[in-house]
Amino acid sequence: MLDMIAFDADDTLWHNESRYLEAKDRFKQLLSTYHSPGWGENRLDETEIQNIRSYGYGIKSFTLSMIETAIELTDGQITARDIEEILGLGKRMLEAEVQLFEHVEETLAKLARDYPLMLITKGDLFEQQRKIERSGLAQYFRHIEVVGEKTGASYRVLLEKHHVEPHRFLMVGNSMRSDILPVLEIGGRAVYIPYQHTWLHEQVSTDETQQHEYVELEDLGQLPELVARLGKQ
Amino acid sequence: MLDMIAFDADDTLWHNESRYLEAKDRFKQLLSTYHSPGWGENRLDETEIQNIRSYGYGIKSFTLSMIETAIELTDGQITARDIEEILGLGKRMLEAEVQLFEHVEETLAKLARDYPLMLITKGDLFEQQRKIERSGLAQYFRHIEVVGEKTGASYRVLLEKHHVEPHRFLMVGNSMRSDILPVLEIGGRAVYIPYQHTWLHEQVSTDETQQHEYVELEDLGQLPELVARLGKQ
Repeated sequence: MLDMIAFDADDTLWHNESRYLEAKDRFKQLLSTYHSPGWGENRLDETEIQNIRSYGYGIKSFTLSMIETAIELTDGQITARDIEEILGLGKRMLEAEVQLFEHVEETLAKLARDYPLMLITKGDLFEQQRKIERSGLAQYFRHIEVVGEKTGASYRVLLEKHHVEPHRFLMVGNSMRSDILPVLEIGGRAVYIPYQHTWLHEQVSTDETQQHEYVELEDLGQLPELVARLGKQ
Repeated sequence: MLDMIAFDADDTLWHNESRYLEAKDRFKQLLSTYHSPGWGENRLDETEIQNIRSYGYGIKSFTLSMIETAIELTDGQITARDIEEILGLGKRMLEAEVQLFEHVEETLAKLARDYPLMLITKGDLFEQQRKIERSGLAQYFRHIEVVGEKTGASYRVLLEKHHVEPHRFLMVGNSMRSDILPVLEIGGRAVYIPYQHTWLHEQVSTDETQQHEYVELEDLGQLPELVARLGKQ
């Protein structure tokens, strides 16, 4: 039996990583006039991951990391106008429409009738709140929580706050590292719905996943049936 | 009688605006090689306020606004190395020590014995959480809430969430616009502790403040005595 079902947002309910990949493509094009393409391919990812400590997650952090990387890769030769282009890339990402995955709205509507639903996202509070508002999905969630990092400890704090026992809690998400492993670690249940793109920072080794039990689904439309089965156990 | 005392953080418990002013000074110095000093003096403030809609509050937003303003004011002539300096200004602000005001720790320790204390800040969740951790004050607060904007509506949501009646709620802060007026608007009580610097965006006209009743104190050390008096009413 379940007392609460929680969902990750980015790349679980709506497209996110593809937005970053588009921006990274534009970023590479922009820098291609300064050097041959392919050069410094992974530098941006490295800078981003290094900057999480100072900046945290989100589009503003990403924009600052793009600027830092561009200056570094061009050895200070990039023009202010090209940096202005990078600022524009970030602003367009912030203003972009929220594009829901298939089956999301119908699945949430169905589950919200029987279970309290919670949205648990990490990242920039301001950016996430705007996406939640624009998604039109806020009505289905009894609780919305934006956390700094998704670790066993941060899930434990959330469950205590909402008085839910771990074994009666189900987390649904696309990130093995943030949505699945830490929830299993504290004795919760997890449904993994992989997304076609996974950011380097969210990737984990197969070794880490093999020791744990979780259910993998192809899309969110399959969730109500699984929940119905779990509910009968 | 009071059921909850809440505090703003930036410029109420610790120095914040002075950090921004220092960075703005460095920013002006940096641009002074491109044009005469004083030119475009308020442009950064204008860009910042305009960008709140896209970026929200915080140091990352401020850094992006500095870069945008620098490109604009130098008509695209600023070098990538100078933009790198601006990135550095932002990073140093993010890494800076939290500098508490006088009487803060003793006042919170005293009040926390008799009342549940709440911290209510707006701005960037990641940045605020880091400051709270570094401040060493987290132990005194039963609840910590980071909100997008401090409006009557957002205070009402918080009070409902924590089951506190507005007239039994006291808010303490340095911003008339964010800490005092919206709390009075929903029937709460407020203590205003002005700070020497107030950012343009937080300023309100004297007309707006004259219609309302709040208590003004010089520093946080005077708060326990006021609370003792309110407690007896």
